[in-house]
Amino acid sequence: MTTIVPIGWSDGAIRILDQTRLPAEEVFLDLSTIEQVAEAIRSLRVRGAPLIGVAAAMGLAAVAEARAAAGDLSPEWLAAAADRLEATRPTAVDLRWALDLMRRAAQEAFAGRRPGREVADTLRREAQRIWDVEIRMCGAIGEHGAALIEPGSTVLTHCNAGALATGGLGTALAVIYVAHEQGKGIDVIATETRPLRQGARLTAWELVRAGVPTRVIVDGAAASLMAQGEIDLVITGADRIAANGDVANKIGTYALATLAAAHGIPFFVAAPRSTFDLLAASGEAIPIEERPAAEIAPAPGAGACNPAFDVTPADLIAGIVTDTGVLWPPLASAIAGYTRG
Amino acid sequence: MTTIVPIGWSDGAIRILDQTRLPAEEVFLDLSTIEQVAEAIRSLRVRGAPLIGVAAAMGLAAVAEARAAAGDLSPEWLAAAADRLEATRPTAVDLRWALDLMRRAAQEAFAGRRPGREVADTLRREAQRIWDVEIRMCGAIGEHGAALIEPGSTVLTHCNAGALATGGLGTALAVIYVAHEQGKGIDVIATETRPLRQGARLTAWELVRAGVPTRVIVDGAAASLMAQGEIDLVITGADRIAANGDVANKIGTYALATLAAAHGIPFFVAAPRSTFDLLAASGEAIPIEERPAAEIAPAPGAGACNPAFDVTPADLIAGIVTDTGVLWPPLASAIAGYTRG
Repeated sequence: MTTIVPIGWSDGAIRILDQTRLPAEEVFLDLSTIEQVAEAIRSLRVRGAPLIGVAAAMGLAAVAEARAAAGDLSPEWLAAAADRLEATRPTAVDLRWALDLMRRAAQEAFAGRRPGREVADTLRREAQRIWDVEIRMCGAIGEHGAALIEPGSTVLTHCNAGALATGGLGTALAVIYVAHEQGKGIDVIATETRPLRQGARLTAWELVRAGVPTRVIVDGAAASLMAQGEIDLVITGADRIAANGDVANKIGTYALATLAAAHGIPFFVAAPRSTFDLLAASGEAIPIEERPAAEIAPAPGAGACNPAFDVTPADLIAGIVTDTGVLWPPLASAIAGYTRG
Repeated sequence: MTTIVPIGWSDGAIRILDQTRLPAEEVFLDLSTIEQVAEAIRSLRVRGAPLIGVAAAMGLAAVAEARAAAGDLSPEWLAAAADRLEATRPTAVDLRWALDLMRRAAQEAFAGRRPGREVADTLRREAQRIWDVEIRMCGAIGEHGAALIEPGSTVLTHCNAGALATGGLGTALAVIYVAHEQGKGIDVIATETRPLRQGARLTAWELVRAGVPTRVIVDGAAASLMAQGEIDLVITGADRIAANGDVANKIGTYALATLAAAHGIPFFVAAPRSTFDLLAASGEAIPIEERPAAEIAPAPGAGACNPAFDVTPADLIAGIVTDTGVLWPPLASAIAGYTRG
């Protein structure tokens, strides 16, 4: 299994592994202000749908603790800080999920007119609980998903849905880690994932550390490997799953799902409870973040179109691996049952 | 239209625009030995299926001229030099096509027992003729292909099939240039084309110079733009076309053709006569170059799989734009007619 822990508590701060500098350097940063936490999320120093929820919650708690020590923790400050963190990135719903839990915990604590330090303690406990929940869900996703992987399979994954994306074992990579630990003799094709190369930089780095045989390909090469019969299964994470089973995930995911369908290869998604958004009826309701053209670096004078995510319609998805088991089509009713549970 | 000329004659050498340094710098290099020409082709300083044929022919002629001046031009040297150039890159058949024409010209000239300088003159004339033929075919491809483009279309293209790839107007980009000149008000989406970014670096640079509105996307984003109805037509060049109409082209082309089919978008290929290989019955007979893992730069310890090309089966191709017109399905018989013509 992996032993990577990309986040932790520090003194009046949270400590994160700066993922923009991987794999060349393992640099940890202490973030002690809301602006530092927000900047780290916006610039992808800390990234991955579940992890940005955890980071926002822990960052909010750490800064609240320092303010409480200075006698300066108010409901107004907390509301503004949570809003500021939520505004950093629009697509992954885990961010809103975690901050809503923090808002609720704060509301109850403030309503009890308890001293600031007690409110801060409550927030810290809630943030730790959120992280613990993600860790537990990752483990369960790995166990349920590994059953889908036949011995000797070559599994293709996109972007990074591992320890670096969750603070736990991962989502898609949890499935791979557990199947590898079970001695299934699998190997992995990781797509590079342009523009920010999370597959080549992060997924490959994680999998190599865990001893999983891994090859990186450019995003455009997946189709021809599929045509050659080299890919047995595709599995990715998710940034937001709508009530009907449409999945927003890293740009290029929809291409892989369409290509997998054209080649008769099953396409799975792995995600914890925090990634499901019942307020989004379908993928059309999911906001897609447009990121700076500079990430693509077109020749001077040319424009760029740089959506960070795309939407894969439910009908291309063989199943969604969650902490309680695999949700099978029809996904809308499976999701309704899962989220009620 | 474009005014880019990526190749030319120099004194006892050929002069090429070093495409590895675009768009940051416009650096011209004089190549005066076979090894320099071979290195420039291998390392993609000069690239594009038609242009590497032209460059090999011109390079062979220029070096032969210098040897003739030194009284040292022999059939043996010429055969070895042509073989060395042909071995640089395996997939684009234009290289073999051009070198076969040069070998034939040399054979006739040597058979006539003419002085070395006359042999060299013959070779230079033949190389110039090959270049002229490519220029003429590019222009005709542009005219025939432009008729396929509806006014106001958004055209997606992959890699670079322009002036930089041909020494003339281009193949896929010739179609775009002519449609643009005809005032059709088109705009272009250029895929970045990892790993070497020919779309972002070269195609965007060419099109911006010609005033064609151009946006660059990462390769993984093409599918979601198609799903949103943003792409009207896809057109690419080719590195080798088999007798049955299967097309080898830059890695990622097969993905785009499959995705275009899934979205009901026509997928065209544009290519001159030099790109057709009747000795290849189908795509299976086309050798696919595997390039160094370093081009993808996976995290240390991870492997890479880096085929430079893929094969698009004939049944995904709406038509092939050639210098004599558009070849329509069934492509096998259309190609037989075209290549006899």
